[in-house]
Amino acid sequence: MIEKPYLLFLGDAPDQLAAKVAQGINDWRPGHSVGQFRLPGCGADLGIADLSLAEAREAGAKTLVIGVANRGGVFSQAWKTVLLEALEMGFDLASGLHNLLRDDPDLAAAARANGRKLHDVRVPQVQYPIANGRKRAGKRCLAVGTDCSVGKMYTALAMDAEMARRGLKSTFRATGQTGILITGEGVPLDAVVADFMAGAVEWLTPDNDDDHWDMIEGQGSLFHVSYSGVTMALIHGGQPDALILCHEPTRRHMRGLPGYAPPSLEQLRDLVLPIARVANPRAQVVGVSVNTKALSEDEARDYLARVEERMGLPAVDPFRHGAGRLVDALEGI
Amino acid sequence: MIEKPYLLFLGDAPDQLAAKVAQGINDWRPGHSVGQFRLPGCGADLGIADLSLAEAREAGAKTLVIGVANRGGVFSQAWKTVLLEALEMGFDLASGLHNLLRDDPDLAAAARANGRKLHDVRVPQVQYPIANGRKRAGKRCLAVGTDCSVGKMYTALAMDAEMARRGLKSTFRATGQTGILITGEGVPLDAVVADFMAGAVEWLTPDNDDDHWDMIEGQGSLFHVSYSGVTMALIHGGQPDALILCHEPTRRHMRGLPGYAPPSLEQLRDLVLPIARVANPRAQVVGVSVNTKALSEDEARDYLARVEERMGLPAVDPFRHGAGRLVDALEGI
Repeated sequence: MIEKPYLLFLGDAPDQLAAKVAQGINDWRPGHSVGQFRLPGCGADLGIADLSLAEAREAGAKTLVIGVANRGGVFSQAWKTVLLEALEMGFDLASGLHNLLRDDPDLAAAARANGRKLHDVRVPQVQYPIANGRKRAGKRCLAVGTDCSVGKMYTALAMDAEMARRGLKSTFRATGQTGILITGEGVPLDAVVADFMAGAVEWLTPDNDDDHWDMIEGQGSLFHVSYSGVTMALIHGGQPDALILCHEPTRRHMRGLPGYAPPSLEQLRDLVLPIARVANPRAQVVGVSVNTKALSEDEARDYLARVEERMGLPAVDPFRHGAGRLVDALEGI
Repeated sequence: MIEKPYLLFLGDAPDQLAAKVAQGINDWRPGHSVGQFRLPGCGADLGIADLSLAEAREAGAKTLVIGVANRGGVFSQAWKTVLLEALEMGFDLASGLHNLLRDDPDLAAAARANGRKLHDVRVPQVQYPIANGRKRAGKRCLAVGTDCSVGKMYTALAMDAEMARRGLKSTFRATGQTGILITGEGVPLDAVVADFMAGAVEWLTPDNDDDHWDMIEGQGSLFHVSYSGVTMALIHGGQPDALILCHEPTRRHMRGLPGYAPPSLEQLRDLVLPIARVANPRAQVVGVSVNTKALSEDEARDYLARVEERMGLPAVDPFRHGAGRLVDALEGI
């Protein structure tokens, strides 16, 4: 568990896209951060207070969260000066980068010397159990995609936010680096050892109130040969009651796999249902979430209407039109 | 790669079952071992020469392979005396046990001092790549099960042996501890980090002659919620041309999962085919392998005949009746 509130470190991000992790944290959990910290030349701006480390500490910040990608997988001297100072001032550090905070001898030494924590959220912190398949109380919703990077995390976060707005019980369950930094906890599923993947998902989504929903962040795709095993473990460990199909309609081939055509939404539905029903015979596909970013508003509305007709399911772009109809679809399940 | 030939360490195995790893090695690769080493009170016997460490070294043995389960997950003093002496005499050690050779300080020190290797085959030794899904030359056959422990390894080994008898090109590809000890190499797939599972299987089954078959050892089951992610990665990483369905007809529930009924062979066929065709559009189910150990000879023949009729596929128990008809089914693929 990463201590809040955060100070969001944007470093010398060349542009807004490089700071998309910080953007995600600020968009979904605006109350979690007291401000942003930017180095000279930073091209990103979250539109929140620029604070020095001292000002952020005064405002109560407990963790400096690296919300920006670094270049070449190394910590530059400019970064390190700030990170070391932060540790000395009492901040914990949190990062989802490939190169680990703990592997930097200076940062590791400073953390030890100051009694601070280094959260490398790509690294599992728990010895997860082997899945036992026991049916758990409470309800679970999982977003599954025709491909990787089609909006599964966004969909789960948007549904969770809509549930909260309605006063319904919901918890976003993070399974990837960005999700973990957003909520401050979760399972970095792609870094878990094979035998324990499904058990990690069971651990992440424990017994709960009968009317509580876990909104589980999806990973990979059953149709993506590099990561389909992770998706499978999510479905069987998560034993979802409700499945949301996620799709990006302009994708020409599976991400990173030229020659692999993305499946249709029908193919995804027909494959995921028998798989999900192994773990939960009541599993249903309840809606479709389409990332229509590459379409105009008219094209998007037209596409969604056609999907809705074809599939007989509510089809929305939660970014454009909100997740309300997806949450409606959970009623009565 | 574990150096051959082996001396098979049976230790103080209370009975034959406790030495089933050694039994497997000796059954499938009789030429790999110069003999067995037994401690006083050993209740197992492979029917091969009992050799002292010195005699085995003289006969050329390079590796002492622990072919027996230990009690309570510790190395007893009686074992350690032998293992330390073996390292001093120039043996490498190989083990598939949960407790690792390398984690025992005395064994680790003796291996270092004598320049010997400790092979803990449960631990991946390679930084596997992320799967790229590229179609590889050569052919691949994968056994998939309605459940865990239904004879997938046996089926692949029996088919590999039959291919060899016929002078056809075939390689058994091990994905578990016992299989790795049998062949001396392989991938301990259940210990690989999630993101790299399918890549490990691609690495294990590289490009080969067009008429060469990899007989890939299966793991888990698509219907076993604890391990289905591993099975999925095997199917997508292995991109099999041919699938063999494996089944144990008297199983009442999935192994270790009370309340989970095993699927029918039809359910397995209908689920595995669309999954396999994501990675290899030409994937076919070509046969059924039934573990009929719990049935009489008449019951077995009757059961197999009915499965054959129902499924329209050759159905055999390779242990009882040989793998010939399963190998026949690969012809023309």
